[in-house]
Amino acid sequence: MENNGVHQNFGQAQVIEAPTNITIKGILSLLMANTNGDKDDKKKVISLGIGDPTAYSCFCTTVDVQQAVVDTLRSNKFNGYSPTVGLPQTRRAIAEYLSSDLPYKLSPDDVYVTAGCTQAIEMVLSILARPGANILLPRPGFPIYGLCATFRNLEIRYYDLLPEDGWEVNLEAIEALADHNTIAIVIINPGNPCGNVYTRQHLEKIAETAKKLRIAIIADEVYGHLAFGANPFVPMGVFGSIAPVFTLGSLSKRWLVPGWRLGWLVTSDPNGIFKNPKFIERIKKYCDICGGPATFIQAAVPLIMEQTKASFFGKTVNMLKHTADICCKKVEEIPCITCPSKPEGSMAVMVKLNVSLLKDISDDMDFCFKLAKEESVIILPGLAVGLKNWLRITFAAEPAALEEAFGRLKSFCQRHSKQQN
Amino acid sequence: MENNGVHQNFGQAQVIEAPTNITIKGILSLLMANTNGDKDDKKKVISLGIGDPTAYSCFCTTVDVQQAVVDTLRSNKFNGYSPTVGLPQTRRAIAEYLSSDLPYKLSPDDVYVTAGCTQAIEMVLSILARPGANILLPRPGFPIYGLCATFRNLEIRYYDLLPEDGWEVNLEAIEALADHNTIAIVIINPGNPCGNVYTRQHLEKIAETAKKLRIAIIADEVYGHLAFGANPFVPMGVFGSIAPVFTLGSLSKRWLVPGWRLGWLVTSDPNGIFKNPKFIERIKKYCDICGGPATFIQAAVPLIMEQTKASFFGKTVNMLKHTADICCKKVEEIPCITCPSKPEGSMAVMVKLNVSLLKDISDDMDFCFKLAKEESVIILPGLAVGLKNWLRITFAAEPAALEEAFGRLKSFCQRHSKQQN
Repeated sequence: MENNGVHQNFGQAQVIEAPTNITIKGILSLLMANTNGDKDDKKKVISLGIGDPTAYSCFCTTVDVQQAVVDTLRSNKFNGYSPTVGLPQTRRAIAEYLSSDLPYKLSPDDVYVTAGCTQAIEMVLSILARPGANILLPRPGFPIYGLCATFRNLEIRYYDLLPEDGWEVNLEAIEALADHNTIAIVIINPGNPCGNVYTRQHLEKIAETAKKLRIAIIADEVYGHLAFGANPFVPMGVFGSIAPVFTLGSLSKRWLVPGWRLGWLVTSDPNGIFKNPKFIERIKKYCDICGGPATFIQAAVPLIMEQTKASFFGKTVNMLKHTADICCKKVEEIPCITCPSKPEGSMAVMVKLNVSLLKDISDDMDFCFKLAKEESVIILPGLAVGLKNWLRITFAAEPAALEEAFGRLKSFCQRHSKQQN
Repeated sequence: MENNGVHQNFGQAQVIEAPTNITIKGILSLLMANTNGDKDDKKKVISLGIGDPTAYSCFCTTVDVQQAVVDTLRSNKFNGYSPTVGLPQTRRAIAEYLSSDLPYKLSPDDVYVTAGCTQAIEMVLSILARPGANILLPRPGFPIYGLCATFRNLEIRYYDLLPEDGWEVNLEAIEALADHNTIAIVIINPGNPCGNVYTRQHLEKIAETAKKLRIAIIADEVYGHLAFGANPFVPMGVFGSIAPVFTLGSLSKRWLVPGWRLGWLVTSDPNGIFKNPKFIERIKKYCDICGGPATFIQAAVPLIMEQTKASFFGKTVNMLKHTADICCKKVEEIPCITCPSKPEGSMAVMVKLNVSLLKDISDDMDFCFKLAKEESVIILPGLAVGLKNWLRITFAAEPAALEEAFGRLKSFCQRHSKQQN
């Protein structure tokens, strides 16, 4: 067993590579490195790549929300550890907040407070993982699910969302994909990356399918309530009595504070399918090994949830509607991209790239790298979310920045068009 | 495959139970439930159970540290996501802070910012885990390591700390325990639960042993610099050129803000054993699935690390020395408990319980539950940290509370003594 260097055992550990999954942040940082930075005064970098609107002053949280955190911090009462499942008052506030949209009442015990929705994803996948299990993930989807499933040795089975049907779930395909080792299906609504908002009827059908397949539903509602189209936001938990639901969410998007890392994992399960004491014990022990969110931020949640005004939420949703409209209108002006399904929620939309109209662009990756280089505009290649030759465009940006970015995108496409207009 | 209820697949997932590991918080909450709460005016509950000193005003962080966080919060610049490895300025500040005690300079790239030291533990065990691997954990130790290893399917091999030798590592035993599947040894210094502070010589011997066994060292230094005995605190990273070290730490203990959840995982590895690009990629991708600490807290770290005055640190260490002295003096007055090794650091000490001197106490668990019930004093049974019939006493408490708790402990022991004094 001799080898050529020190630390042979650790050398073996090194052989374990990272999963090969693409991450959004990984690609975006490569794209960013491909721009000229902000050195070009005429072309400041504009990123429509990530669902973080806080770079733009029109998407700023309220002074009151911020003050609530300043107050809990200054009180000196919340410098210590919280219970690893979360502070009791925080769990209660989140249970009440979510219950107001449900036909039943959640208990504080249903709520586990997490370091953002990311940790809620990691937690639910880890507690459900068992040898041989598989999970159904949407395509296109949010890559953290795939990365996390790979780290936890969960087999991934992708199901397709249907672009021509408002990115609805292909329910027949799901029945074909699932087997007795399928533990759950992930539903992201409002949709990232697609901007879909599912109807109540479609959500009910998803629940009926999950019931038939006897699997749990992981409902990623991190964009909950950010709906501005014909369909109102309906939480999956409404159908928790049909199939048990893990609801994932956070303050990040609705309160415009993604960096605060305050999320939740909630068992929306009025029939108590999850209420096996051994399973609850497993969740609690898993909480013990997670570093959760800061105690003083948790302590501010009750005030934040009770006192944020409807006008603040309304302003954000109106602004998103406005910027989504700009986005769709501008897409129509560019022949090589099309939007099969207008966004009705969240902060992003998928547009289809027709490379056959371009003379020197091989695919979506090539498109995005050249766009970054030539125009200092960052857009996410669809490959990063599972759809080659599509693009994910985040429209949560200042209208002026969005107009400017689309102007550059248009001239880029014209320059690379086979038939120059 | 038919069963009696809905959701058969999820039912299978439920069969996966929680690991059976005992957690400190789990036992403490049972003990707390066994008290009369604060209903008994004469006997308010006093907890010497957990390493969270923030309940006592003598262990309060500074106004400046708090103001640094208020300022980054109010700046509105840090409401958004940080890179998942941490903000660049935070990584740089932690690298500089730790480098000042090292014979070489850490790079910001060596630092991964985590949600407290707990997440650093979870992260390092997860990135090192591979099928068949085992890890060496101290006994007594910190149970999160065992719980985390179990969740990640890492085989645990406990090595003994030697109570009569200042809780030093039994190096010969380690050589016998390790094999080619051993990936790392965990060293907690200053020690939790033992209060040990290892000499430079002993740390060097540990590094030499790790080198011989070709394993990495996981150095848990969450109590770093909280040393008040003959031995100064020496970070394990000093010997990083002998064996590669993962250094784990946080603001929690030295700055008295465990609830802020700001920790780090650092590769203290001047020879670059960890610098395999695939391994670095694995760490970075793991960071992508973790919800890290709040961005605005991260942003305050440079100011906090640069500007906290030596007098603040000195005050804490002096107070801990004082309360450790009270603790040792009081232990001497109680025949059924003895302290083989006086604490020289951290916030806790292990004392040995002689149940043969007690008439109706079967073991440490029985002792702690009856003590909680009768005296409303919470002490951790040694079983929770791997040593049956020992007790872990946290001395990070107000002197008056400590005196009161020991008074009650003494009368409890007298009452249950075979020969009543």
